[in-house]
Amino acid sequence: METKIVSLITDFGLRDPYAAEMKAVILRICPKAVVVDITHEVESFNIRMGAFVLASAAPYFQEGSIHVAVIDPSVGSQRRAVIIQTQKSFFVGPDNGLLVVAAESQGIKRIHEITSRRLMLPHVSNTFHGRDVFAPAAAHIANGTLLEEFGPEVTSLEKPTFTKVYHDGSNVIGEILHIDGFGNIVTNIRAKDVEHLQGSMMHAKLPRMKTELKFAKTYAEVALQQPLALIGSQGYLEVAFKQGSAAEEFLAKPGDRIRFSPA
Amino acid sequence: METKIVSLITDFGLRDPYAAEMKAVILRICPKAVVVDITHEVESFNIRMGAFVLASAAPYFQEGSIHVAVIDPSVGSQRRAVIIQTQKSFFVGPDNGLLVVAAESQGIKRIHEITSRRLMLPHVSNTFHGRDVFAPAAAHIANGTLLEEFGPEVTSLEKPTFTKVYHDGSNVIGEILHIDGFGNIVTNIRAKDVEHLQGSMMHAKLPRMKTELKFAKTYAEVALQQPLALIGSQGYLEVAFKQGSAAEEFLAKPGDRIRFSPA
Amino acid sequence: METKIVSLITDFGLRDPYAAEMKAVILRICPKAVVVDITHEVESFNIRMGAFVLASAAPYFQEGSIHVAVIDPSVGSQRRAVIIQTQKSFFVGPDNGLLVVAAESQGIKRIHEITSRRLMLPHVSNTFHGRDVFAPAAAHIANGTLLEEFGPEVTSLEKPTFTKVYHDGSNVIGEILHIDGFGNIVTNIRAKDVEHLQGSMMHAKLPRMKTELKFAKTYAEVALQQPLALIGSQGYLEVAFKQGSAAEEFLAKPGDRIRFSPA
Repeated sequence: METKIVSLITDFGLRDPYAAEMKAVILRICPKAVVVDITHEVESFNIRMGAFVLASAAPYFQEGSIHVAVIDPSVGSQRRAVIIQTQKSFFVGPDNGLLVVAAESQGIKRIHEITSRRLMLPHVSNTFHGRDVFAPAAAHIANGTLLEEFGPEVTSLEKPTFTKVYHDGSNVIGEILHIDGFGNIVTNIRAKDVEHLQGSMMHAKLPRMKTELKFAKTYAEVALQQPLALIGSQGYLEVAFKQGSAAEEFLAKPGDRIRFSPA
Repeated sequence: METKIVSLITDFGLRDPYAAEMKAVILRICPKAVVVDITHEVESFNIRMGAFVLASAAPYFQEGSIHVAVIDPSVGSQRRAVIIQTQKSFFVGPDNGLLVVAAESQGIKRIHEITSRRLMLPHVSNTFHGRDVFAPAAAHIANGTLLEEFGPEVTSLEKPTFTKVYHDGSNVIGEILHIDGFGNIVTNIRAKDVEHLQGSMMHAKLPRMKTELKFAKTYAEVALQQPLALIGSQGYLEVAFKQGSAAEEFLAKPGDRIRFSPA
Repeated sequence: METKIVSLITDFGLRDPYAAEMKAVILRICPKAVVVDITHEVESFNIRMGAFVLASAAPYFQEGSIHVAVIDPSVGSQRRAVIIQTQKSFFVGPDNGLLVVAAESQGIKRIHEITSRRLMLPHVSNTFHGRDVFAPAAAHIANGTLLEEFGPEVTSLEKPTFTKVYHDGSNVIGEILHIDGFGNIVTNIRAKDVEHLQGSMMHAKLPRMKTELKFAKTYAEVALQQPLALIGSQGYLEVAFKQGSAAEEFLAKPGDRIRFSPA
């Protein structure tokens, strides 16, 4: 009996019964599933943050894992519910930009809409598709149900704007995806976008502050209470502040534009 | 080998070792158990909130699940430790009102007090029966120990007051059970208590505010930043505020009285 | 197929993908592992708090469990990565004092440094050894890899200062290890250090306050809103305040000195 991993990302928090209800539904439909909480503490309705966390964590899971993500401000409207099969795994959730960054980086094979009532809970609420639609879908995939049975194949996904990186000569302009628990500023800029700047001093310009900082390989290259840029453990360019909070230092928020230029 | 689900609800939080010690004890006594955290973030000593979360989540778990709930302000006193077997599952915890809402909705078959020292940890502390009494009991149930072995059958449970709903003509008076993570106000009023009001405008009266609002089926029926009432995904009447926090808007707290009248 | 428990303690929080990436790596390398989160909410870089939580929780886990702890302010420097095998279990993490309290109380058998790149992830980041070094090591131990394969045996560990208890006549001087979620003050003083004071009144002296309090066996011995000392469920001397927060009442913080004297 092969174990099937079902991972969960939501903005439901852990004080309410919502996340537990999803886990209960998954384990009832597929008792052999191993449920792994990625996080339930995405900021309410913050699709960008959910997309970042999912894209960061998904590469570390084994092949065949099923990732359920529910940050779903438009639940109950006409937004589609989808399953994306990639070269490596499955992504289940609303078609609102949440899944696409993680899925595209694994190579999308096909996408199906979830329309079959037979594969949802008997009563589908208007407010909680995480439990009534997405959790059952993930469990049925883990049980081997074919994607065709969930609903029609679809050929495109809603594309979020927060993945765009712009180049202007040797300047690189991106966006802040996420502030992590240490106050590090995680941008949407990948290593390949800034390899021409590696190892040198840079200017960084944010909406409320600007600074000069080293594009370092490790924290050891700069002094305490100094800023630095580095490629973080998630593969994105980050701005950090040694033994401090870069977000507080530079008054940075998710969604802010950020520009890097050679010093 | 059948898997046995043991779910946990406590007010221990996740910064301390307490919840982990319960999980360790369960897995040591019953290695085949699958432990599912419902929440450890019930407010300290808030039995009403714990009872609500348990009653909300329990219906989604598979038959034979064992639910351990520990919000236990009277630990070390004479309050009883009990196991309730229902038509569907088992509930383990202090006899202080925490278990009774969830258990009654499944149909109670029998109740046993936990008195046998043999089925507790060798050293039972005065302050932490979650680990020393309730976690071992749940694991022994998962292993197939008969309820008779835990202690004598008992015939009644402490009844909480927070489940009472009053009718006064076409007015319905209930209580706020819970404020969820989105600021929705969850009452103790069930759909059947208010079916005569469905679809129309209502007056809602809270201790610090009153308002007129639609008793809607979905959020789509009202404009942004407007209040609405609806039957939430847990089956209780909720007051919401579209894309806002109803609890902040109406200064509502768990335990507040709330009255609904036809407009 | 025997299940192998891998427990996790970190200061990563649950909003970021870090803890989930460790779980994904462990389950990918050892699909039969059962991952148990002890906590991810240790205060950033607070080795003392992590050591306390680990030492508290570890005794409750079954033999052969593998405990991974990552509070690692010096990641990327020359601090060693180690595996400690005790009479009962394994501890994996940085050699910075975090593991030693828990490991010594189980009897240390041997210690190996982790140096073999073959048993780490292919790309080892400079900032996240939890995922790249420690999670893979734990999973390989669960798979039966011998400690010799990870790296050379070492004969000593960094010793933290926060375990020291001083005796001055019948006075006992210790340190505050931890403030728990109920506001109880957990000291580093063990039952055996204070058995001469049990049952009597004591003076307690903290940096910002002093008080007289009973060294009780249970909360029932003192009135509401009164302080007491007792041996807590973790085996350490605690100062509590009945139905209140001792930490707020006595302005106590982790790391504070605390002195107990006969009254």
